[in-house]
Amino acid sequence: MIIGIDIGGANTKIASADGKIIELHYLPLWKNSKLPEALIDISRRMRPEKVGIVITGELADCFPDKAAGLSYIIDAVNNAFKNAWFFDSSGAFTKEKKRSIAAANWVASALNVAGDFKDCVFVDMGSTTTDIIPIKNSRPLAATTDFERLKRSELVYSGALRTNIAALLDTVKVEGAISRTSSELFAITADAYLVLGMISQDDYTCDTPDGAGKTLLDSRRRLARVVCADLTEIGEDDIVFIAKQVFEKQVRDIADAIREVAEQHDLKTIVACGLGEFLVKKAVEKLRFELVLISEKYGKGISKVFPAYAVAQLVKEK
Amino acid sequence: MIIGIDIGGANTKIASADGKIIELHYLPLWKNSKLPEALIDISRRMRPEKVGIVITGELADCFPDKAAGLSYIIDAVNNAFKNAWFFDSSGAFTKEKKRSIAAANWVASALNVAGDFKDCVFVDMGSTTTDIIPIKNSRPLAATTDFERLKRSELVYSGALRTNIAALLDTVKVEGAISRTSSELFAITADAYLVLGMISQDDYTCDTPDGAGKTLLDSRRRLARVVCADLTEIGEDDIVFIAKQVFEKQVRDIADAIREVAEQHDLKTIVACGLGEFLVKKAVEKLRFELVLISEKYGKGISKVFPAYAVAQLVKEK
Repeated sequence: MIIGIDIGGANTKIASADGKIIELHYLPLWKNSKLPEALIDISRRMRPEKVGIVITGELADCFPDKAAGLSYIIDAVNNAFKNAWFFDSSGAFTKEKKRSIAAANWVASALNVAGDFKDCVFVDMGSTTTDIIPIKNSRPLAATTDFERLKRSELVYSGALRTNIAALLDTVKVEGAISRTSSELFAITADAYLVLGMISQDDYTCDTPDGAGKTLLDSRRRLARVVCADLTEIGEDDIVFIAKQVFEKQVRDIADAIREVAEQHDLKTIVACGLGEFLVKKAVEKLRFELVLISEKYGKGISKVFPAYAVAQLVKEK
Repeated sequence: MIIGIDIGGANTKIASADGKIIELHYLPLWKNSKLPEALIDISRRMRPEKVGIVITGELADCFPDKAAGLSYIIDAVNNAFKNAWFFDSSGAFTKEKKRSIAAANWVASALNVAGDFKDCVFVDMGSTTTDIIPIKNSRPLAATTDFERLKRSELVYSGALRTNIAALLDTVKVEGAISRTSSELFAITADAYLVLGMISQDDYTCDTPDGAGKTLLDSRRRLARVVCADLTEIGEDDIVFIAKQVFEKQVRDIADAIREVAEQHDLKTIVACGLGEFLVKKAVEKLRFELVLISEKYGKGISKVFPAYAVAQLVKEK
């Protein structure tokens, strides 16, 4: 068996090259994570003959810098697998500890997509971030570091589950007035989309901000706290209204970035994947571009772990 | 001895009525805090004959709602002190568990200030939030819940130490471009003001977001991460420039709220306290209002724990 693994700061995703195995493990690196043990477990269960790896977890703030983060993750991988290859931002595999291994997961995805779509904007909206990658003549044209991509709207640090609502909204409309929001980590996008029925409890794959449960009531409580209220002070309608404002703001942000990248490169087709596909779909509807969903092409499972699936294909052909 | 205690979500502050004892303890309630033990320790050390208490910590998200938060804190106080009186938002002391005890710390401060300044806006900028209280004819006129105050700009959930920079800035100017920011809790206002030399390491009285140290280098690292960079990717000048943008945005936010409250009540004198006095001073300079600093009247120590000092005065007179 050949597998691909995408090691992010919050999630580690696995796909087999044949697409039959799909796994998503919530392994937050900044929380004394069990990454080394989890990788050994995967190795024992799957016994892969070859493994392709992409890494974005080096930015997690348990590491003093990206080199230290990469080194830790690469060591954990090599300790678990005999034949692991690391994919870098130039599109090559290596076994060396190179800086260019950082944040290369979108390169694997984009190269895969570029086979079918020569000219498009590839958008992967995950739990935490959104990659917006221009592809022209089958070549991904995004900058190669997160820092550079943030400046070019090729990376929006906003995702379908983990984004702090305080980072999205400075104010919300509520009870006919405009309220400032609390700047704490009181509620996240997963709470808004659970309240709106856009995700299920099973989709809420990250920790809750308050360590409480993932029921509708728990999410309502967290959303109320964003305006320093509890459920005795604010009605259900107003909580739903706050959640809708989260949805609208996030869709608008993603749409703005997609428009900017598309116009820059004169592109009109968007290829979208990730667990935030439903948000990208809404953004692209606003923009009236053509939309291709990876979930419709390969299924929802592969869409959610697409970089892992893509690097599995690439390492297979290596 | 008579003391006042202000129990917030992040900090517990103590002042004796004679102003000789001033203590600030970082006791984050959401982190399995040691509040009950800390209060017992204070009781044993100071043996006060009477204690005035104000509470804002009920909003901490370890509590399902404010009633539960109040109950926990009140029990902890009564377990430590024999003669404790809880101040409520109507300006009265009680020994009962009443909802009106929630978020009443600014009422104690405002009543104290109103003795000397019949008509003013009282501004207390702390580590986490900023209270902006209109006082007319010696009566504080703010709404009595945090939720209502947020809507009236009488509460801005933005402070001099703990505020997530992602909640302040969606984008920053850097290297001649505009960069989006990361939505994680990578850096806080304390990092910006340490880098700008506006606070010292000793003033940085809260936890660091990454659990690392409080040196200039640590704060620089955290600020770099806000644009997904490490110190090999971004120069010191650009980090200082990011910190300046934090400063300017926060001053602008506070100035906007002060202007709104002042205009609403036709007030032109601002009385400011709190460890964020230096930020309020800058905001008021922009507005060209008259400014009185509590630190100049009572000293820096009392300014930083003013609600505790104020409730100590009130309970003394009770």
